[in-house]
Amino acid sequence: MTLEFKLRNQTEAGGRRAQLVLPHQTVETPVFMPVGTAGTVKAVPQDVLETLGAQIILGNTYHLYLRPGHEAIRRMGGLHRFISWPRAMLTDSGGFQVFSLSALRKVSDEGVRFRSHLDGSSHFFTPEHSMDVQIALGADIAMAFDECTEYPAERSRAEESLRLTMAWARRSLDHFRAHREEVVWHEELGGKTQSLFGIVQGGMYGDLRRESAERLVEIDFDGYAIGGLSVGEPREATLEMISEVLPLLPKDKPRYVMGVGYPDEIEQYARMGVDMMDCVLPTRAARHGLLFTSEGRLNIKGKKFAEDQGPPDPECNCMVCRRYTRAYLRHLMHSGEALSGTLNSIHNLAYYLEIMQRVRASLEPAPEVPSQAGSA
Amino acid sequence: MTLEFKLRNQTEAGGRRAQLVLPHQTVETPVFMPVGTAGTVKAVPQDVLETLGAQIILGNTYHLYLRPGHEAIRRMGGLHRFISWPRAMLTDSGGFQVFSLSALRKVSDEGVRFRSHLDGSSHFFTPEHSMDVQIALGADIAMAFDECTEYPAERSRAEESLRLTMAWARRSLDHFRAHREEVVWHEELGGKTQSLFGIVQGGMYGDLRRESAERLVEIDFDGYAIGGLSVGEPREATLEMISEVLPLLPKDKPRYVMGVGYPDEIEQYARMGVDMMDCVLPTRAARHGLLFTSEGRLNIKGKKFAEDQGPPDPECNCMVCRRYTRAYLRHLMHSGEALSGTLNSIHNLAYYLEIMQRVRASLEPAPEVPSQAGSA
Repeated sequence: MTLEFKLRNQTEAGGRRAQLVLPHQTVETPVFMPVGTAGTVKAVPQDVLETLGAQIILGNTYHLYLRPGHEAIRRMGGLHRFISWPRAMLTDSGGFQVFSLSALRKVSDEGVRFRSHLDGSSHFFTPEHSMDVQIALGADIAMAFDECTEYPAERSRAEESLRLTMAWARRSLDHFRAHREEVVWHEELGGKTQSLFGIVQGGMYGDLRRESAERLVEIDFDGYAIGGLSVGEPREATLEMISEVLPLLPKDKPRYVMGVGYPDEIEQYARMGVDMMDCVLPTRAARHGLLFTSEGRLNIKGKKFAEDQGPPDPECNCMVCRRYTRAYLRHLMHSGEALSGTLNSIHNLAYYLEIMQRVRASLEPAPEVPSQAGSA
Repeated sequence: MTLEFKLRNQTEAGGRRAQLVLPHQTVETPVFMPVGTAGTVKAVPQDVLETLGAQIILGNTYHLYLRPGHEAIRRMGGLHRFISWPRAMLTDSGGFQVFSLSALRKVSDEGVRFRSHLDGSSHFFTPEHSMDVQIALGADIAMAFDECTEYPAERSRAEESLRLTMAWARRSLDHFRAHREEVVWHEELGGKTQSLFGIVQGGMYGDLRRESAERLVEIDFDGYAIGGLSVGEPREATLEMISEVLPLLPKDKPRYVMGVGYPDEIEQYARMGVDMMDCVLPTRAARHGLLFTSEGRLNIKGKKFAEDQGPPDPECNCMVCRRYTRAYLRHLMHSGEALSGTLNSIHNLAYYLEIMQRVRASLEPAPEVPSQAGSA
């Protein structure tokens, strides 16, 4: 068993404090995973991510497949070695970007033909191919190839999309099981392998979501993700879909909600029993000058910060808040300086990671009362 | 006396090992000064500069005057505090950028009227105004307002330009002396003040350069810079102008060659007796993928590095060379990732600063032979 999920505590509200034992890192959950799209969490050096306490980061299969190519990455020892990241990694299936970034998509039961957004070249992704690419990349966790249902979607469209995702889930797992031992670090790490998570889809239809969850659990994945959320739906819908699905997922396996969310969302979902989340929001917002702080969202471009010598967030102890002022961050943003994206991203990631640190602390099991007996 | 220059050793070739005692930092010379144009050494966080051993960095008066404005910076406690840089700083006079970046310049004996390259707004810089701006910024070292003679320049043009620079040098120093105690950290640092350096001009005419140096020494500045080099002239001309000027400068004051150069140049000039140099080359080249290494210049974009798992420079011990591969840096560059500029810049600055570290070590005075007498 490559993936071990050690449940240490569960609250009445469902929140779980656990450890996810992966080949490259034991991850304390609930965990927020910064997104390292093309093999870099945009503008943030790896040693800073370590200092911030990032335990696991994402890589995007679509981007890395197109550039520099999964075979090149395999030849260089896999994604961990290529980007010099010794802790845990997760790759998505490529599906989301194929559907959101590429051009001229043609979907069939077999897979998706699409053109690269970089050079227009033609590619064909199947569940089997996604597995091959993800095994070449060699993240600790790979994701089943799915179709992310758009929002809004008619029921018939959501049903058809779900049918495809379920068929692809089965094929993903079959191919993954047959080839999981080909991962480049298999021997180096004493025979460990990657894990594969299935993805619950079903649009905003509770019954389709439940059906999707039940069928995936039957197939038996190493963990379960809820996909197709944060695609434009109202927040109540997101919450409702998560609430529908969580009770159906096995307690002894990790649960991952993909692509969420705002700071209060990740806290809320973690307290409901979601173990893993990822989102580009902290880094993308940072590059646009939006900081998440204990005082709320702060648009650092604002005129009112021109001579504000306070730290970005007075409650934050990150390396940016300890050293720099709002006035300086505003100046960097206004001047189009690269350091702006770096410093803003570091703070936002620190803010997200600190939230999860706090949630984990609050989910710890109650300390045992020391027994009187057994003293030496 | 605010600036103290402690000459510890001088070689036969002229190379000097000294300490430049400035209000914010005692700088070991010869020193290379990274350029922090708009209050940031592009793409490199301040803590990384500290780790790299940067002792003094530059700020560009023209850029900071236009944005965020020198008065705003003064109100925020000066440039050191504004950018959170506790070590030494130097500001140029603004002259170079007025002449190279702005539009519609109109030069008179009084000063230069120009339009901002940012918004077309009209501004008038005089020697007195440059001093006021630099005192507001509050770097440890300010520079006299000069006209950087373009290359090539007819002799008559170089003469006229020099006449202006010499008149402006006098006015710069007079105004600076009258107002140097207005610097924002004057009291906080026990009555210390900024220092002002004069700038030798004269184009590529040795006799004009000598005349310029002699007249500046007569005026009596805290230190002397050689400007108007690295403006497109052949390298022998640069060397010749430096050689003409150095012997005329007082031995007990620092000598600064502005805007140079390639790695072998900064070493060569340091060994001739130049104490300070600055250049945008390491950071600007880095952003274009050009790395300086012990194996020569390396264009990291090259196809041949696609799967090169060696460090950028096998001889370098910087944080980039210890962690990342050429293949990864190439990938970042090809993918247009912000981390590319950051990592490339860190390595190039490390390379430059390491050269000066090595030069300083080689210029140390010979260890004294311990005397037999006086043992306990």
